[in-house]
Amino acid sequence: MRIDIPAFDQAAAEAAQHRLDRLTKPQGSLGRLEELAVRLAGMTGNPRCRFERRTVVVMAADHGVTEEAVSAFPQEVTAQMVANFAAGGAGINVLARQARAQVVVVDMGVRTRSATGVLDRRLGPGTRNMTREPAMSRAQAEAAVAAGRELAGQLAAGGTSILLTGEMGIGNTTAASAVTAALTGRPAAEVTGRGTGLDHGALAHKIAVVERALALHRPDPADPIGVLSAVGGFEIAGLAGLVLGAAERRIPVILDGFITGSAALAACSLAPAAREYLIASHRSVEPGHRIILEALGLEPLLDLGLRLGEGTGAALALQLVDAAVAIRDEMAEFAEAGVSERLDG
Amino acid sequence: MRIDIPAFDQAAAEAAQHRLDRLTKPQGSLGRLEELAVRLAGMTGNPRCRFERRTVVVMAADHGVTEEAVSAFPQEVTAQMVANFAAGGAGINVLARQARAQVVVVDMGVRTRSATGVLDRRLGPGTRNMTREPAMSRAQAEAAVAAGRELAGQLAAGGTSILLTGEMGIGNTTAASAVTAALTGRPAAEVTGRGTGLDHGALAHKIAVVERALALHRPDPADPIGVLSAVGGFEIAGLAGLVLGAAERRIPVILDGFITGSAALAACSLAPAAREYLIASHRSVEPGHRIILEALGLEPLLDLGLRLGEGTGAALALQLVDAAVAIRDEMAEFAEAGVSERLDG
Repeated sequence: MRIDIPAFDQAAAEAAQHRLDRLTKPQGSLGRLEELAVRLAGMTGNPRCRFERRTVVVMAADHGVTEEAVSAFPQEVTAQMVANFAAGGAGINVLARQARAQVVVVDMGVRTRSATGVLDRRLGPGTRNMTREPAMSRAQAEAAVAAGRELAGQLAAGGTSILLTGEMGIGNTTAASAVTAALTGRPAAEVTGRGTGLDHGALAHKIAVVERALALHRPDPADPIGVLSAVGGFEIAGLAGLVLGAAERRIPVILDGFITGSAALAACSLAPAAREYLIASHRSVEPGHRIILEALGLEPLLDLGLRLGEGTGAALALQLVDAAVAIRDEMAEFAEAGVSERLDG
Repeated sequence: MRIDIPAFDQAAAEAAQHRLDRLTKPQGSLGRLEELAVRLAGMTGNPRCRFERRTVVVMAADHGVTEEAVSAFPQEVTAQMVANFAAGGAGINVLARQARAQVVVVDMGVRTRSATGVLDRRLGPGTRNMTREPAMSRAQAEAAVAAGRELAGQLAAGGTSILLTGEMGIGNTTAASAVTAALTGRPAAEVTGRGTGLDHGALAHKIAVVERALALHRPDPADPIGVLSAVGGFEIAGLAGLVLGAAERRIPVILDGFITGSAALAACSLAPAAREYLIASHRSVEPGHRIILEALGLEPLLDLGLRLGEGTGAALALQLVDAAVAIRDEMAEFAEAGVSERLDG
């Protein structure tokens, strides 16, 4: 797989910084908003980048590992929630509307075929049970990544200039935990959490399930496609591809929580330069998310105790991106507003 | 001063919680957004409260303590920034537009009289130098609080259903530090920070200035009007009144950073029940802000390294309030969307 990711544009970043420093506020006083404006300039290569068309890609798939009773919700909820996304009634629909983003729902492999209004990129009726066999074949993992890359290209051609990642899949925190453990070398107990709401005993069981899968496959961290194949999910592999496809085109990607984080981790294992194009929206309640963010060197913008997924945290963070852009473009400069600068400045 | 603050409406809060628990998401999975929706219901007494008209009140005043060289910016910047607010070019103008809030700029006592487009509630041409004499008379402190309460009433009559607090005043982090130290009993060194950007030596000097003022006046923490009079500011006293006037009318108040926090601390010293109506938007870089939030028992929504003031953090948090309201009102319920609930639910 050949992936060419352009370098972060330092000159564009410096131009944005220069602009911010002339605005009527103490330098740096808008903290992370300013940092965001500078990073966005470096990503896009444009110190005055704007994001008119914004797309949340919600990839959905089922997981064979649900046979091991790792979720508080039954497997059919994946398909039911896909229908809910298509009907506009889910959390991500509400928050995307508020942030003026479109929602593109992608069936990467839900057990039952999805309704209208859903992009069909199905690789099968869910993965296999990773505690017994690889979740998917190597060819399926590669196809899922390729589908994500291609979708980024299609959305870019349609005018999307910033991508938000979202997901749905009962059982996918188990897959994300296994992927994270495999890629970071951390023990299952550190990267596995309560998902949609397991109690203490059920969490211990889930950790044991992740341990069993890792012991069976012993995935090689230097082979991210192998990791995705052994213990991943169709939506996780697809989102890894989406991240790569965006980074190839200088399109900033707003990550959501733990599952999309595990996809970004896989993407950056395939192409480390993709990391420059990532914005961490929030810190999820899932313990593995903190480990992913550390591994990627990303500091999340929000910490609101979210654990819904779907892209909801990314949609909230998009409003901070908008705030950063508006500050950069709409504030007056010291000279034009007749405001004195620092005494020692 | 008689202040009647209605009790938090537990029944309305429970009704909002009940609604949230039927929506198509694991219960509680939207974390602090859900908590916010519940608190807003209890504040307003309406489980389906909406906030159509939203107002940022930016109170500005000058500070005699600037004679002691406590700020990196010259005193005339207060008036210059008031003109910038009126012209729409400051950070708060940009972020308020983004959050569809109007900005009301109030001159509480800027050294030079303000331009058009600014409400005149002047109590004098700035406070006096608190290291030599009380910043203002007791009558002025009472008048400033009364002006804030009255303004809340006027804005409520005009349809404002949520208030955001903002401020401008070169030297006002020094006043806020002194107020915070006086009301919490904490030493000046713990509550005094770099303001708009002092270096290490200048910070030590600023701490000594706060210590001198406190040693001179020995303000009684049980007498918040006395504290405001000795070491406060016209905008701080005015904002304390605004908080009280909002709480009296069940209007939620989104606090900004350290200065508006010190005003809220004074308000809650006058009427502890006002605390129920406060939303902490963000955690400022100023060290005293953390102490105020602890004293008020508030957990901020954002932590973005902001230190601009003006109400900028409050404007960002308004979008989270909108998100909480939209989630509560626009998401589908499990039954209507045909989504299965928890296996053990």
